[in-house]
Amino acid sequence: MSNHKTLKVFSPYNQSLIQEIPMVGAKEVESALDKAYSLFLDRKQWLPAYRRIEILEKVQELMKAKVEELTKTAAAEGGKPYVDSKVEVMRAINGVKIAAEEIGRLTGEQIPMGLTQASVNRIAFTTREPIGVVASISAFNHPLNLIVHQTVTAFAAGCPVIVKPASTTPLSCLAFAEILKEAGVPEGWVQVVITDNEAAEKMVTDPRVNYLSFIGSAKVGWYLKSKLAPGTRCALEHGGAAPVIVESDAQLDDMIPALVKGGFYHAGQVCVSVQKVFVHEGIAKKVAEEMAQMAEKLIVGDPLDEKTEVGPLILPKEVDRVEKWVNEARENGGEILCGGKRISDTCYAPTVIYNPPQNIKVSKEEIFGPVVCVYPYADREEAIKKANALPYHFQAAVFTKDLDIALDTVQQLNATAVMVNDHTAFRVDWMPFGGRDASGEGLGGIPYSMHEMTREKLMVIKSRFL
Amino acid sequence: MSNHKTLKVFSPYNQSLIQEIPMVGAKEVESALDKAYSLFLDRKQWLPAYRRIEILEKVQELMKAKVEELTKTAAAEGGKPYVDSKVEVMRAINGVKIAAEEIGRLTGEQIPMGLTQASVNRIAFTTREPIGVVASISAFNHPLNLIVHQTVTAFAAGCPVIVKPASTTPLSCLAFAEILKEAGVPEGWVQVVITDNEAAEKMVTDPRVNYLSFIGSAKVGWYLKSKLAPGTRCALEHGGAAPVIVESDAQLDDMIPALVKGGFYHAGQVCVSVQKVFVHEGIAKKVAEEMAQMAEKLIVGDPLDEKTEVGPLILPKEVDRVEKWVNEARENGGEILCGGKRISDTCYAPTVIYNPPQNIKVSKEEIFGPVVCVYPYADREEAIKKANALPYHFQAAVFTKDLDIALDTVQQLNATAVMVNDHTAFRVDWMPFGGRDASGEGLGGIPYSMHEMTREKLMVIKSRFL
Amino acid sequence: MSNHKTLKVFSPYNQSLIQEIPMVGAKEVESALDKAYSLFLDRKQWLPAYRRIEILEKVQELMKAKVEELTKTAAAEGGKPYVDSKVEVMRAINGVKIAAEEIGRLTGEQIPMGLTQASVNRIAFTTREPIGVVASISAFNHPLNLIVHQTVTAFAAGCPVIVKPASTTPLSCLAFAEILKEAGVPEGWVQVVITDNEAAEKMVTDPRVNYLSFIGSAKVGWYLKSKLAPGTRCALEHGGAAPVIVESDAQLDDMIPALVKGGFYHAGQVCVSVQKVFVHEGIAKKVAEEMAQMAEKLIVGDPLDEKTEVGPLILPKEVDRVEKWVNEARENGGEILCGGKRISDTCYAPTVIYNPPQNIKVSKEEIFGPVVCVYPYADREEAIKKANALPYHFQAAVFTKDLDIALDTVQQLNATAVMVNDHTAFRVDWMPFGGRDASGEGLGGIPYSMHEMTREKLMVIKSRFL
Amino acid sequence: MSNHKTLKVFSPYNQSLIQEIPMVGAKEVESALDKAYSLFLDRKQWLPAYRRIEILEKVQELMKAKVEELTKTAAAEGGKPYVDSKVEVMRAINGVKIAAEEIGRLTGEQIPMGLTQASVNRIAFTTREPIGVVASISAFNHPLNLIVHQTVTAFAAGCPVIVKPASTTPLSCLAFAEILKEAGVPEGWVQVVITDNEAAEKMVTDPRVNYLSFIGSAKVGWYLKSKLAPGTRCALEHGGAAPVIVESDAQLDDMIPALVKGGFYHAGQVCVSVQKVFVHEGIAKKVAEEMAQMAEKLIVGDPLDEKTEVGPLILPKEVDRVEKWVNEARENGGEILCGGKRISDTCYAPTVIYNPPQNIKVSKEEIFGPVVCVYPYADREEAIKKANALPYHFQAAVFTKDLDIALDTVQQLNATAVMVNDHTAFRVDWMPFGGRDASGEGLGGIPYSMHEMTREKLMVIKSRFL
Repeated sequence: MSNHKTLKVFSPYNQSLIQEIPMVGAKEVESALDKAYSLFLDRKQWLPAYRRIEILEKVQELMKAKVEELTKTAAAEGGKPYVDSKVEVMRAINGVKIAAEEIGRLTGEQIPMGLTQASVNRIAFTTREPIGVVASISAFNHPLNLIVHQTVTAFAAGCPVIVKPASTTPLSCLAFAEILKEAGVPEGWVQVVITDNEAAEKMVTDPRVNYLSFIGSAKVGWYLKSKLAPGTRCALEHGGAAPVIVESDAQLDDMIPALVKGGFYHAGQVCVSVQKVFVHEGIAKKVAEEMAQMAEKLIVGDPLDEKTEVGPLILPKEVDRVEKWVNEARENGGEILCGGKRISDTCYAPTVIYNPPQNIKVSKEEIFGPVVCVYPYADREEAIKKANALPYHFQAAVFTKDLDIALDTVQQLNATAVMVNDHTAFRVDWMPFGGRDASGEGLGGIPYSMHEMTREKLMVIKSRFL
Repeated sequence: MSNHKTLKVFSPYNQSLIQEIPMVGAKEVESALDKAYSLFLDRKQWLPAYRRIEILEKVQELMKAKVEELTKTAAAEGGKPYVDSKVEVMRAINGVKIAAEEIGRLTGEQIPMGLTQASVNRIAFTTREPIGVVASISAFNHPLNLIVHQTVTAFAAGCPVIVKPASTTPLSCLAFAEILKEAGVPEGWVQVVITDNEAAEKMVTDPRVNYLSFIGSAKVGWYLKSKLAPGTRCALEHGGAAPVIVESDAQLDDMIPALVKGGFYHAGQVCVSVQKVFVHEGIAKKVAEEMAQMAEKLIVGDPLDEKTEVGPLILPKEVDRVEKWVNEARENGGEILCGGKRISDTCYAPTVIYNPPQNIKVSKEEIFGPVVCVYPYADREEAIKKANALPYHFQAAVFTKDLDIALDTVQQLNATAVMVNDHTAFRVDWMPFGGRDASGEGLGGIPYSMHEMTREKLMVIKSRFL
Repeated sequence: MSNHKTLKVFSPYNQSLIQEIPMVGAKEVESALDKAYSLFLDRKQWLPAYRRIEILEKVQELMKAKVEELTKTAAAEGGKPYVDSKVEVMRAINGVKIAAEEIGRLTGEQIPMGLTQASVNRIAFTTREPIGVVASISAFNHPLNLIVHQTVTAFAAGCPVIVKPASTTPLSCLAFAEILKEAGVPEGWVQVVITDNEAAEKMVTDPRVNYLSFIGSAKVGWYLKSKLAPGTRCALEHGGAAPVIVESDAQLDDMIPALVKGGFYHAGQVCVSVQKVFVHEGIAKKVAEEMAQMAEKLIVGDPLDEKTEVGPLILPKEVDRVEKWVNEARENGGEILCGGKRISDTCYAPTVIYNPPQNIKVSKEEIFGPVVCVYPYADREEAIKKANALPYHFQAAVFTKDLDIALDTVQQLNATAVMVNDHTAFRVDWMPFGGRDASGEGLGGIPYSMHEMTREKLMVIKSRFL
Repeated sequence: MSNHKTLKVFSPYNQSLIQEIPMVGAKEVESALDKAYSLFLDRKQWLPAYRRIEILEKVQELMKAKVEELTKTAAAEGGKPYVDSKVEVMRAINGVKIAAEEIGRLTGEQIPMGLTQASVNRIAFTTREPIGVVASISAFNHPLNLIVHQTVTAFAAGCPVIVKPASTTPLSCLAFAEILKEAGVPEGWVQVVITDNEAAEKMVTDPRVNYLSFIGSAKVGWYLKSKLAPGTRCALEHGGAAPVIVESDAQLDDMIPALVKGGFYHAGQVCVSVQKVFVHEGIAKKVAEEMAQMAEKLIVGDPLDEKTEVGPLILPKEVDRVEKWVNEARENGGEILCGGKRISDTCYAPTVIYNPPQNIKVSKEEIFGPVVCVYPYADREEAIKKANALPYHFQAAVFTKDLDIALDTVQQLNATAVMVNDHTAFRVDWMPFGGRDASGEGLGGIPYSMHEMTREKLMVIKSRFL
């Protein structure tokens, strides 16, 4: 090993050391790249579709046998409560299934010929090919499922992939890598590198890499994109602001629990967490108060405890940041309806803020913590304008009974997905998913990622008989 | 000519003779079939896509130059008012354009191979081929546009077609055939036969015919289907009952004019005319009365007059039939809010009936005349059940502001298309269109017809290199 | 039970009685129809997609545990050799998987609005709905896999289904029904009826049936189609003649074994069995002789023996028929290169006939037995014309190295699928499959059947905000 | 105007001044951006689909009336011979038609819900929206058609577009802008800026731009991509090396004229020009010589002369560059079979070089001039490796009669499109078109560009009734 550094993985909840794992340096990264690129260049080593399908079916089987173990690893290193982590594991298994099924959809189509005189006597078809070596940089908030999204997709599409997990949550990734190996993934097709940012940047900007899959902060994502080698494509998944529009006719009974779940799931550390709720002024205070009442009762604590509903933030410095932002809101007139304080060095109380001003952090930025702001509005058009003016455009929501208003709000909100009468964090792994504008590039969702990791080749056959 | 019969075309409005045209008999029909089948068998005579496109662009150009003439011919023989006939002509031109555009969409796709070990070393694609000789039997209510739907689709798809227009409205068809010829359609690709029903039945059941396009009564349609030669496919477009569900929150200002237009357009002689309107009891009488007020003001008269809004029925015996049905409704407790009487031997007054019983003709059958029934309901589920229990399932509608109710009603109504906050007779020529269950088989809509007039061929290539 | 008849199931190989099972009569069939139709009408009893998926995954699991048992049942009652029957069982399991996967593809699409001024302010989408009650009539040659194709497709698509297995091979169907039950298919969704033809005809022509899936003889299929209730759709899968064109440059090493497999698999009792091989005269005799040499060595015998390559015909009278046809060929100048005689009352020797005349049974009809005819040709165009002139159009094949000739032959052969350098009996269960013209109607292949068992509903929403 | 510079447009053939046109500076560019962005933000100003279609149909009509004028402008400023320029104009008209037709294909689809228990009670659909402001930077080699590809696509997709034409060929662009205006394109939707590179860079990197369409050199393209604002997507179309593989069985009669046309069309100044022809050694010299014989006879001269087959290079310095490269080839052992010298300051003679070494300019780089290299090979695999090792991957070709070899070569060549038995420069405007790897990003071809200029929005509706 060219490098003797190690990575210490701590519990985000109690800061205890979970495990210390070896890191690799530039030399090992180069060797991984070389291995991956060689595989890609040598078609004889490519795995036929049925073999990839068989392996991924085996992967599902092995995962099903380890649900408990995978759940605990993810909860321990990532801090997402046990129950939600188990949901993540089940989704990850489903994700592998989706990828296996999608292999048969990586197909081409006929391109018509002869529509002009110049193109007669030809027949043309497209097929889809793997794009090349994929490099994935992952995030901490779904330590297992994101890895599935960023490796299994590539493997299924026929691309060798090298993945760098989040430095806070590498253990789920390593556990998954073991499963892949046991299931029969041949050496080199999915490689994990535990390395520092410098080596990771060197890796993703290498010309042998043809696709970067990045989940993380906008700052890093757009920076890396600007450094990519010519010809390297990328998918960037950054944060969102997740605006919600609540009309005066919204059905509150269903909505309040949905918004509370959507806002405080994983302590708000999800790119589509409910954060800014614009409510018609006639019911805004009532909505905020009902949310606060419910949020207050959420059980905050040890993610390994099955009763816990909200766990820690990923790092103590994030608690500091959230604390500062909420204080700023309080000082500028935002009304703190619940929470508004840290519980420990690692946990922050679920917080609902009523009507903070627009020019402060909680209003302008992605909060990525257990804080939801409620803003009253008089005019829906104005609320939509404010929502669209937020720096990020990812998922959004509208609550109303009215068909016309629902359609119009969906139409006007700048977002990749708009939920009608549901919170912004709704997601299934086969739907298109990804930020637009500054929130990201390319499309997630397993079938979509797989299509982005392939490219079409057109074959035009000319024949006197056609 | 093997047959010296002629066909007299009368004005449905004043019963004057418009034109007398020669009919053909079995011998000429056989000769048309022979010609069409020979063309189909001889690939060298097939027209390349670009040539079909060029011709259809020329057809549009020629039609645009004859809008006035085509409008008058259609209005005179079919009785649809001038203004609506002009809309029909414009739609017919648009239909030719849609067909020309769709030629480039008659494409195949890749079928994946290698998903099992038994299917490796193969690559597979489909292409689309013309299905063979098409025989079309047309109806009177859109004398030009239906002919476009039943001939241009076939020609565009590469199929020779023989069309028998309705015996009441052959002139628009003949005028269109002239245009096709002038535009360069080579002999035999589109043939018109003016013949009797016996010869027509012989034609459509001939084994050389591979596709029957039939628009007309259910009785005749299903009969013909049962007589088709083995291997002949068909599209049958029969009538509908066009139920409408009106919830108590419906916005009446927009709805009343929509329902009146949808109910009395072409004197109700359209397969998707509004006929049975189920209205929440809280507003049912009001809705019926407002419709009646509006219907009463409709100008009934000469279809060639630009002011006319409702013309004659196609035949005097249809006036008799409608009269009898309305009388039956009146005698059984239906409240006649307007109309309810014949205006002349050829015209019947626009009629709104409130709450006729369910077991009489106007409730049980397709009315195909200027009569709309309004039924109050207490429970939406019950109304939907009644709507679904009608003998025909074609287009339907629901009026409500409520998103959930709209979706649920769309989901529950048995129909090929459900309009939300619009009348049942809405149609554009590129949308899927056709009855289900007893209302018909196959799909209309120009692109859909063209796809049905082609069939896929799969090519599977095995190669040691794949 | 309204009927005390029983069905005796015999071994096609040694005519021993395998099992005697009770039959049901008109009353039970009516009750099955009533049950199925009630389920379809009551949306509350419909199974959500995820539940259907779960059940079908359980079905696969149960089948995997019973491969041996299912194989023996199928081989015993149907006579297909053990090894090939095991392949059938594995394919059946794969078929259930394909159906489960396809549930998520039963989706609709947006239909554009606003392309003309008359259609602005609207948005439109289609969805897919189950078509209604499905009635399936099955065939003997794949006693398990056809049942999967004709029941699981319906269940997966959300349609209640009633299946009548072939009277010679009901046991695999009953075994599969047990598995479905054990996997959690609720009562009524998949019902098996062991009944006579009269009751079966009454069932399929009942207006409550919305879809007939028929696999069997053309005569019965087209007859049943002509009797269907108005509105009932159908898929008919009849026989084929499976022509093969062999150019002079064909690579014989791979071709001979492929043709022998494709011709004598299941004693030729498959609708796409290789039957008529048109070979360029330069190599025709050589090809025929090499095929004969290989065919002669095929082990004919007990289907339950793992070494058997060709088993019995399904009924002794089929041996009589084949004997008669081959004798006719011999008497009319066809040269019998191998076989040409019965081995027992139940088995006929694999037979290759060189150049029998065109006007006799083996040349004009589907043979459905272990007989392959080889015809020399001088001109490829002529060979194609002869192939197309055969009464049936299902799968076909061409062997050549030449790209242009391959494409041209694919283009000219009248067939639903043309294999290039492979035999005509190639099939995977996800590809489109079905006869055209007299060979059948509708498309098989699991995804295609599922699409045919659903129908689109269009929803057009009008809104002033759009 | 903030800037008093002008742009002088010279004839590339005789260097005469054709026209002097005013340039704009940063201020006008800012104002164009502001105008475009305002249009995009204000949905009320968006043009409905039918209006965009009507306008584009008018555009076609106006272009058809000006074919001669547009041809001469393009030929005069761009140097492409008259006959080929006329083909370009006809293709440009066809391109406008394709764009108009594609408006109706910018549709979404249903995304299935309920495949897992967590996603029941929902229905989901996607729609497509315009991506935002498009900035286009165009190239000289198709002065009219590229402008159509880079502006009409955006307009049709509903995006405001600002285009900077090549500084050598702005006149066709300005003429087209006049046509757009006359056809009714409202102000601001398509803006032309004649400006310097600095202002252009500032424009395309502005955050208000959401899509960059760039056609030009790889160096500039990848540089601009690295400078884009976060969230800006791009399509880059750079050069290619257009390798051709010729097997020993290739049919030379058709091939030689195809390669000569593909190599010397527009003096080789096309990104898919035939440049490197790898020929089986058995026929390599013969192929090269026959190409040289044909190339020698090409008429080089004034592009406005109808007899001219090859015109000037776009700038005299390009003649210098080509001269230097060919000299390098000659000096390093490449055999010059024809041409190999300049004809004038602006024209270079069509040149065929036999077997130049791999490490010199003509072998390693895109030539972009009237020079074709022919390389003999012994082993096809080696030839493919060399072809793939070229720096660019765009279109490629293979000539062979053999089906297996054709498929294998298509499969192995790294290219977006591989022509079988046709030259590499084949293109129709509706097919996917674009470089991969270093040759570009994103897809051209009018329908593909339009799809890239839109993005999907997902709407997920939750309802208790679903």
